[in-house]
Amino acid sequence: MSVTAAGGFRAAGTAAGLKPSGTPDVALVVNDGPRRDAAAVFTSNRCKANPVLWSERTVTDGRLNAVVLNSGGANCYNGPEGFQTTHASAELVAELVGGGAFDVAVCSTGLIGQQLDRPLLENGIKAAAGALDGDGGHAAAEAILTTDSVAKEAVVERDGWAVGGMAKGAGMLAPALATMLVVLTTDAVAEPADLDAALRAATASTFDRLDTDGCMSTNDTVLLLASGASGVSPGRAALTAAVTTACADLARQLWVDAEGSHHDIQIEVTGAVTEADAVEVGRAVARSNLFKAAVFGGDPNWGRVLAAVGTTGAVFEPNDIDVVMNGVRVCRAGGTELASPSTDVDLSGRHVHVLVELNAGERAATVLTSDLTHDYVHENAAYST
Amino acid sequence: MSVTAAGGFRAAGTAAGLKPSGTPDVALVVNDGPRRDAAAVFTSNRCKANPVLWSERTVTDGRLNAVVLNSGGANCYNGPEGFQTTHASAELVAELVGGGAFDVAVCSTGLIGQQLDRPLLENGIKAAAGALDGDGGHAAAEAILTTDSVAKEAVVERDGWAVGGMAKGAGMLAPALATMLVVLTTDAVAEPADLDAALRAATASTFDRLDTDGCMSTNDTVLLLASGASGVSPGRAALTAAVTTACADLARQLWVDAEGSHHDIQIEVTGAVTEADAVEVGRAVARSNLFKAAVFGGDPNWGRVLAAVGTTGAVFEPNDIDVVMNGVRVCRAGGTELASPSTDVDLSGRHVHVLVELNAGERAATVLTSDLTHDYVHENAAYST
Repeated sequence: MSVTAAGGFRAAGTAAGLKPSGTPDVALVVNDGPRRDAAAVFTSNRCKANPVLWSERTVTDGRLNAVVLNSGGANCYNGPEGFQTTHASAELVAELVGGGAFDVAVCSTGLIGQQLDRPLLENGIKAAAGALDGDGGHAAAEAILTTDSVAKEAVVERDGWAVGGMAKGAGMLAPALATMLVVLTTDAVAEPADLDAALRAATASTFDRLDTDGCMSTNDTVLLLASGASGVSPGRAALTAAVTTACADLARQLWVDAEGSHHDIQIEVTGAVTEADAVEVGRAVARSNLFKAAVFGGDPNWGRVLAAVGTTGAVFEPNDIDVVMNGVRVCRAGGTELASPSTDVDLSGRHVHVLVELNAGERAATVLTSDLTHDYVHENAAYST
Repeated sequence: MSVTAAGGFRAAGTAAGLKPSGTPDVALVVNDGPRRDAAAVFTSNRCKANPVLWSERTVTDGRLNAVVLNSGGANCYNGPEGFQTTHASAELVAELVGGGAFDVAVCSTGLIGQQLDRPLLENGIKAAAGALDGDGGHAAAEAILTTDSVAKEAVVERDGWAVGGMAKGAGMLAPALATMLVVLTTDAVAEPADLDAALRAATASTFDRLDTDGCMSTNDTVLLLASGASGVSPGRAALTAAVTTACADLARQLWVDAEGSHHDIQIEVTGAVTEADAVEVGRAVARSNLFKAAVFGGDPNWGRVLAAVGTTGAVFEPNDIDVVMNGVRVCRAGGTELASPSTDVDLSGRHVHVLVELNAGERAATVLTSDLTHDYVHENAAYST
């Protein structure tokens, strides 16, 4: 169901022929109201794709009628023609579903630097508009996938209202948003300011803590649309909680489907003076190619964890740090006290939990990442060829 | 010749049995004077190995008589016993070659978190002291290697004086020094302040611009020892130039021997407002796993270059950037003008030149990196097992 789990939304996915594989590549999500409030967060990459440049402008008034998404091309760094394609897509959706082009957000994903085939895209949009359905959430979720192996969908049911969502993203997952497109919908009644606050809080503690390969995308977009169809006004706190639950669910699905990964690595940092310190430390470990390659090799190399921690500006004393891998305390007090042998650590399973205890304060954070594998190298060496 | 190319130095390398392979693993470099001035730079990692903690203190007075180095163990994060091993090594060298322990720098490289076998190490030091020779530079260079495939040595001859050097380092090469040990020697007459200035300038434009895998070591050390044996006082500028030449030569040798690399990637950034901007941009590209995997796959994926550039805080306009790969201008004005097809780029050779023209200012910098390959993953997944 995903984006159509909440009342007031229809969706569709169609195969427009943008992808050589012939799999679905155009998705449309329409808000039938009665309200059309919206919020969004975008990549902080300064090299932004055309649909990001467009959608940033359209959402400034806190209103969206629809979102059109395509896989099969990022529509990025391809000049004025690329921006015109985005604009034309929005105009066409507005014609088909009502409202103005500025009420239509556009998202694209795929290769950078190539033009989208506009006639194919426009035919796909028309087909999607004709196929819009209150049960179309799954079809839409299928149509936005690139290297993903499965569709990512989430539904959070509340008393009389709901939040639904779909996501795509398997590589280029990094902070300040993964390379991902996410559309969240709710039938709650909420003002744009509430939606914005809920979305920013939710993404900060979920998608922003997913860092599978340290690479930041040009196209990341997370949209939240509210139809008000339930007639329920849950308030900002309840809305934030539900949106966060949906985002955490989708982030987890992105994590376990990361390109080429053999291990899902959860890096929990405790004893930090600030949450920002904890995130910085977790991120540094998540970005250590040496540590990630060691996990792939089944090697509980905690020295590489400490080497990564040492690159940060977080408050800690090197000789206060403990490291626990899958329950085994392999480093006590920075190696100054007797610890368990790392040969006791079992990395044969898919899930790896790394606990870094800074022992400097009371704050904590968890960052999710993946191991660095032959499959990752293969997939990213072969992607565009 | 390396460290013994300059007058006043003897060196040796021996196999102490610290490495299971039985290859040489202890090196000793002794300054016979008449002067014993010295300078050093160390890793900026806050999790520092015991030999770094020791050597930082010994060099504060600008004097060193000798350097003892071992491979086969980083002597890092192994508690008080590890520091005592470093201290004992320095005491032993002082006994054997004269002077005090505080005139002996210590360097270690290898796995973190394990104790060095002190009796083996001490026997190795004694053997090295017995083997010290004015032609021992190459033997010393051989004894500090870990995953390196070849010894790295450099000699810069000047009128009546010289600079020699040796280096090790093949992985964990990142800014603020690669994971590497470097010992440079000169028979020039120079004050510690001149040596320090020359060494900092030289490393900033050479080793600090080598970033093969984004990982920063706990053990990085670069030492410069001056014997004054030539009687020539070249002055700070000439000294800096010669030391920079030696460092650039060694950095290049580290680059082309980076773990598992199939391509040596040179990222030249021009048109930056500041040199720091140019370095930041070059480093961001050098750290993009997606870009590095694409190069491995022979894919001139300039979109991944721009995506990396966009993560920086450098001054630029996205639509002003040109990208040239191996001489082919694959992106003009951020894709807004017609460029050459990326299929014209030949990545079949080992050398890859990426030129990023920001077109924002007049400054430039070059960062050296490697591609991300199956061999890198294999080598680092298997290193400690």
